[in-house]
Amino acid sequence: RYGYFGKDKPEVVKLLFCNVSGCLTDGQIYMSANGEEMVSINTRDQAGIEMLKKGDVEVILIEKDSITEALAAKLSKRMSCELLHNMDDKLKKVQELMEEKRLEWKEVAYLGNDEPDINCLELAGLSAVPLDAPTVALNQAKYICRNAAGHGAVREFAEHILLLKKKARSQMEQDRIGRNNF
Amino acid sequence: RYGYFGKDKPEVVKLLFCNVSGCLTDGQIYMSANGEEMVSINTRDQAGIEMLKKGDVEVILIEKDSITEALAAKLSKRMSCELLHNMDDKLKKVQELMEEKRLEWKEVAYLGNDEPDINCLELAGLSAVPLDAPTVALNQAKYICRNAAGHGAVREFAEHILLLKKKARSQMEQDRIGRNNF
Amino acid sequence: RYGYFGKDKPEVVKLLFCNVSGCLTDGQIYMSANGEEMVSINTRDQAGIEMLKKGDVEVILIEKDSITEALAAKLSKRMSCELLHNMDDKLKKVQELMEEKRLEWKEVAYLGNDEPDINCLELAGLSAVPLDAPTVALNQAKYICRNAAGHGAVREFAEHILLLKKKARSQMEQDRIGRNNF
Amino acid sequence: RYGYFGKDKPEVVKLLFCNVSGCLTDGQIYMSANGEEMVSINTRDQAGIEMLKKGDVEVILIEKDSITEALAAKLSKRMSCELLHNMDDKLKKVQELMEEKRLEWKEVAYLGNDEPDINCLELAGLSAVPLDAPTVALNQAKYICRNAAGHGAVREFAEHILLLKKKARSQMEQDRIGRNNF
Repeated sequence: RYGYFGKDKPEVVKLLFCNVSGCLTDGQIYMSANGEEMVSINTRDQAGIEMLKKGDVEVILIEKDSITEALAAKLSKRMSCELLHNMDDKLKKVQELMEEKRLEWKEVAYLGNDEPDINCLELAGLSAVPLDAPTVALNQAKYICRNAAGHGAVREFAEHILLLKKKARSQMEQDRIGRNNF
Repeated sequence: RYGYFGKDKPEVVKLLFCNVSGCLTDGQIYMSANGEEMVSINTRDQAGIEMLKKGDVEVILIEKDSITEALAAKLSKRMSCELLHNMDDKLKKVQELMEEKRLEWKEVAYLGNDEPDINCLELAGLSAVPLDAPTVALNQAKYICRNAAGHGAVREFAEHILLLKKKARSQMEQDRIGRNNF
Repeated sequence: RYGYFGKDKPEVVKLLFCNVSGCLTDGQIYMSANGEEMVSINTRDQAGIEMLKKGDVEVILIEKDSITEALAAKLSKRMSCELLHNMDDKLKKVQELMEEKRLEWKEVAYLGNDEPDINCLELAGLSAVPLDAPTVALNQAKYICRNAAGHGAVREFAEHILLLKKKARSQMEQDRIGRNNF
Repeated sequence: RYGYFGKDKPEVVKLLFCNVSGCLTDGQIYMSANGEEMVSINTRDQAGIEMLKKGDVEVILIEKDSITEALAAKLSKRMSCELLHNMDDKLKKVQELMEEKRLEWKEVAYLGNDEPDINCLELAGLSAVPLDAPTVALNQAKYICRNAAGHGAVREFAEHILLLKKKARSQMEQDRIGRNNF
């Protein structure tokens, strides 16, 4: 009757999938007639990714095709994160990776922003969209960031994930004490 | 007395004319002393253009002269859209194209943002301006986007066009059923 | 007792002095380790400058030293406007130019944004600051734009100047009719 | 019983430590596949730094590692300020510098924006964060700017520091007069 005898442990996120264009960046692509395309990221979001890694949450960046392979490689290196390019069918690729890593949806967080993300937004244990995401994505997210894409949304979701992890751990600890003292 | 006997079918947009500077871009031109000029587009707007094409709406980008011919060509390729440069008299060029494609104004949507657009904004079956357009254009548009130029206005108008198309089709279907069942 | 017998004609602006950094641009200077510095302007503001020229208002861009001489030259050419660089003592230079052009303060409009502009903001017949100007300049301007620097403030002030010109002309016309009919 | 017999003189700030990424810049890092990284500063903030120097407040820029050493050097030169790079332990480095310059915390102002700044934000006589700083830093600052990072926060804090300096001086002057007249 007391504690969590035989129940699943509260879900704790172990992996975050994070869109590049429209989540890590604000979706702006800067271009000139002959020069390379340019995007921007925010150091606050970079700090958020570092916080997650320190908190034992792996971060994998995902991207369909809005940026070139070369720019994707640069971003991957800059953020010290794996980056999966050409994600045509996000759900399929995400599920393959989850199987490989033996993870369940409740252990996965997902930050997306548009139509190709809605399946993952619905299935992931934790999911979020930046404040300025199109309606189709806003409707599927479990958490809507107060910050816009490329300007703090990743950081905000990172803090949210870590706060929930902390709460889950403290709950587990409380339950353990409860069991021992009973 | 019932249904649409002999009436025109509800208008369905087949072509969108979309300004580049101040609609697809936010109007910012980045420049250095000797380098090429740079503009930015948003992946969300690019997704909106792709949605229109999938929904059988052709998209033609138009531009007066704020960007160079070379940059216009780059944008055209990037967005996979025809782009008409040096549109001095927009109304005249738009009407020529409409004749060529045998389209009426009610089948045309127009996204503009300033004084040279007001004739087309008034005549087009559907017309819109970004939230931050000058007053002279705001006054003529049938729809004012909640999103600013270069940051989602194109996407928002695309969704608006497709929603109306869907409604019109469903109305036509209902009328057909109505006629058949009568 | 009726009309404007012997009075000065209502003031009509013939010249606009417009700051570059913080008025025509948003004040952002983009820089890399070895590359050229970059700024941005908005096509809406460029259209505002063209409107003024068509309305017989000369536009002179002024700049202290936030951008290089080479970038200033590029901007001058891009906007088709004279640009005065290294304006250390803005009041003195502006007054010299006014004498040269035989203009009085009531014929001069001034768009500024910071401490070095406050004398001119106070003396000019019409004066304005962008919405986001520092308080010291906001306090001296006769008109505070609803648009921010580099994102429509020049356009807005141009429309304001042209509207007042139109009003002044219509007043003069009315007075002339009044005198003739009396 | 009157005046400040034997009391400390009111604190007057002599040195400002100011973060680069997220305070002087808005934290955005612009990047292309092969080009140099780019950041932006605002001329309004540059003017704020110049105001501080004229008001006898030294300004030292500090940075952990979000920008390269070469870009840091460029910024240092552009702002005519010393810039300390690779500030891993900000508190330690700041305290070493304070000892070297024989300054106490009440003579030091600090503009920070994230977790590595919270010790200094708490200890400095005056401390501030930009409007858009993460919560962890907002909670420790004595002053929260109404302006965002890279868009006026430095200027606003500079004005705040100089206003308090002016007040402190006028108080000291009043006390001196009070003592002399007694």
